[in-house]
Amino acid sequence: MREDFLQSLQHELGSDVFFGADIPARFHNDWAGLEPVVPLALVRARSTEQVSATLRLCDRFRVPVVPQGGLTGLAGGARPIENGIALSLDRMNGIDEIDPVMATMTVQAGTPLSVIQAAAEEAGLFFGLDLGARDSCVIGGNLSTNAGGNRVIRFGMAREQVLGLEVVLPDGTIVRSLNKMLKNNAGYDLKQLFIGSEGTLGVITRAVLRLQAKPAALATAFCGCPDFPAMLELLKSARLRMGSALMSFEVMWPSFYDFMTGNLPDLRRAFSEPHGIYVLIEASGRHADENRAMLEQILSDTLEEGWVSNAILPSSERETRDLWAVRESVSEYGRLMGPQTAFDVGLPTSAAGQVVSEIEAAIKSRWPDAIALSYGHIGDSNLHLVCNIPSAGETQPHKEITELVFDAIRQAGGTISAEHGIGLQKKPYLKLSRTPEELALMERIKRAIDPNNILNTGKVLSN
Amino acid sequence: MREDFLQSLQHELGSDVFFGADIPARFHNDWAGLEPVVPLALVRARSTEQVSATLRLCDRFRVPVVPQGGLTGLAGGARPIENGIALSLDRMNGIDEIDPVMATMTVQAGTPLSVIQAAAEEAGLFFGLDLGARDSCVIGGNLSTNAGGNRVIRFGMAREQVLGLEVVLPDGTIVRSLNKMLKNNAGYDLKQLFIGSEGTLGVITRAVLRLQAKPAALATAFCGCPDFPAMLELLKSARLRMGSALMSFEVMWPSFYDFMTGNLPDLRRAFSEPHGIYVLIEASGRHADENRAMLEQILSDTLEEGWVSNAILPSSERETRDLWAVRESVSEYGRLMGPQTAFDVGLPTSAAGQVVSEIEAAIKSRWPDAIALSYGHIGDSNLHLVCNIPSAGETQPHKEITELVFDAIRQAGGTISAEHGIGLQKKPYLKLSRTPEELALMERIKRAIDPNNILNTGKVLSN
Repeated sequence: MREDFLQSLQHELGSDVFFGADIPARFHNDWAGLEPVVPLALVRARSTEQVSATLRLCDRFRVPVVPQGGLTGLAGGARPIENGIALSLDRMNGIDEIDPVMATMTVQAGTPLSVIQAAAEEAGLFFGLDLGARDSCVIGGNLSTNAGGNRVIRFGMAREQVLGLEVVLPDGTIVRSLNKMLKNNAGYDLKQLFIGSEGTLGVITRAVLRLQAKPAALATAFCGCPDFPAMLELLKSARLRMGSALMSFEVMWPSFYDFMTGNLPDLRRAFSEPHGIYVLIEASGRHADENRAMLEQILSDTLEEGWVSNAILPSSERETRDLWAVRESVSEYGRLMGPQTAFDVGLPTSAAGQVVSEIEAAIKSRWPDAIALSYGHIGDSNLHLVCNIPSAGETQPHKEITELVFDAIRQAGGTISAEHGIGLQKKPYLKLSRTPEELALMERIKRAIDPNNILNTGKVLSN
Repeated sequence: MREDFLQSLQHELGSDVFFGADIPARFHNDWAGLEPVVPLALVRARSTEQVSATLRLCDRFRVPVVPQGGLTGLAGGARPIENGIALSLDRMNGIDEIDPVMATMTVQAGTPLSVIQAAAEEAGLFFGLDLGARDSCVIGGNLSTNAGGNRVIRFGMAREQVLGLEVVLPDGTIVRSLNKMLKNNAGYDLKQLFIGSEGTLGVITRAVLRLQAKPAALATAFCGCPDFPAMLELLKSARLRMGSALMSFEVMWPSFYDFMTGNLPDLRRAFSEPHGIYVLIEASGRHADENRAMLEQILSDTLEEGWVSNAILPSSERETRDLWAVRESVSEYGRLMGPQTAFDVGLPTSAAGQVVSEIEAAIKSRWPDAIALSYGHIGDSNLHLVCNIPSAGETQPHKEITELVFDAIRQAGGTISAEHGIGLQKKPYLKLSRTPEELALMERIKRAIDPNNILNTGKVLSN
């Protein structure tokens, strides 16, 4: 049976299927850092038809398939399954078309995000999605995980950048739904099923993306606020007065800000005095001067109202970069503290202040030498938290820390995954964020579309 | 059996269920203008639990249920079924909460759109959805049909205004998914299933809506362009240079503009000379002066480039209203020309010029006295077309006109419904806009979620 399957696969896909030692190591894992797995075979598809042929065979022989994009996922969703096929879309890389009138771009699923961003800019337009892995991740993965990133407060998640999809269903059916229109209410909006379902319902092979006008000029401000409630007043004011000009609202708790500026000699503290909480605000608009004037006005008003204690409007590119450098220093975690337990959770914004205090206190009370750093896209209700127990060395109590944090998130009505998805790693905890009725409905949809349970089997859902 | 059902219904719902002559006539139909139908019974639910009880009974006895909101739909989706129950949400009317920090509003499904708009403004915020029926339509209907309207180019369709839903499934299960967070990737995004599926998969009982900053100031410009391709250059320029300040881009063909200004004495032509096509542009921003200056700059450049032949920047409220009055005179159709065949189609924008010319010519060649008026939200790729054959009197050739128009739309790769949905009226034509694979996938989802086919039976899909 298994031999029949492998022979049929080789017959259909020829030199585009790889076995054993011929499978390059990078296809054994994603960035979640779980144990690598060598799949039964790797298919590197060159066309939608090859994706369809692979799925049809796998469905017939009941062989699990793990779709792979840029392998930058942080939840284990693209890690292969031992007795399954890894199906990489990395060779389906290319831009089919840019339509300047519709402001759309049609791309193959394996196209890197940074290539899409560059092509949009070359056409005088702009793609609304951006995240740290932009050079390695590909759009198929961005869409199947509904990626978030740096511009969500302004342009929304990956879902909101998509007008149409081409998808292959588990039985090999190719569903071409490459809509380019902003308005299309002819029947169910099928693409929504495949965005954010982490490759468990279909394999995205092509997408029609929505492009934006390029934000012409950016301006940044950095503030120290007395405490979390004051910072919320600043957020409300920025939202109301800046509207769609608000591009970023990034918050850093002292736990994060003090640790990073204290341990990385290249980073400079913006203020000599300490503050209760720190905020980076970015404004976009047609003219740099207008943006700066708008920020100046908001800061002067909120300083007067006491919501802000001190603020800086950088006057050079260099000063701006220095302010962002602290927020972007997260890439230095590995060097600074070894193995971490990292979180990407969501919270009703008003609750975030108290929840962070409680979590940081609970961690320190249980592990007195703990490092627990909090920061996040608070304008999007997204909190990041990173934790390391120096005395635990290489055997960090990941499970205990996770349960402590997720329990606090559950109690606050938050989500255990704001942008990274569920994959394998967060699957045991999904029930903390979703009701039994929601989970049953997800399972029902999964069974309807993938009755033989071959697509990314065992990811996201319990089956 | 039927008696058992009706007894159980009355037992569960008491005085909230109505029969025969006690069913007010307005529940017999929606605005699509099909023949009215008296349902087996009308339930006017006061709570989610009552909606659940009704559906559970209907599912058990296999009785079809037609969910009803404000009954303003234009495709017959809310028209009752003779042997089925009409389930009105009109009594579930009220705002549960406004969260100023998250910028969200939680509402019951029967709340009128205009009430939501007013409550948002009172809280210093703004709701991104607006359409003509704002006083009669309710949010549950807006969401189940994924309503479009006047602000799509800026804020997107109804779908993009929603963060969470409470939905009752056909078997009575209440799925509470009242998420308030901008980012939440914990499992499938279930709300997407129910938005735009026209009440065929579940009954929306509550929604968490996303609110926006209030656009502080608006400015309008009116242009005559030499022809369609020139107008497209103006659209590209406006999109690129205005970005999120572009609130409306409304196009009127001479067929529409000349007919309305020629037949309604209150309307004034903006220019003494004729133009190839007319455009209303609306800009939003923080200051009226900035908006006006931006429009002025764009118009002066596009006049120089030849894309615009003449333009007006009104200097008073009154002048602005006069310019919009022509576009908004569509409410006078009934008085002007009696029975019409009206379309709400979508087209790849670049193709719209040729398609409109071909359709108008084909109609006039077949019915020489035909009145065929074209206009639309062309910035959203949405075209409206209204047709009347005076010589046909009360027996307009609706079917022939529809087939002629939809065939042209199909050939251009457009959609037969941009914003009004499919309902009953457009069901026979759905296959013109969706592939057999797409239709099969829709049917599969319908069967999975509504296995007994009780929810809005016979609407949208063929079963």
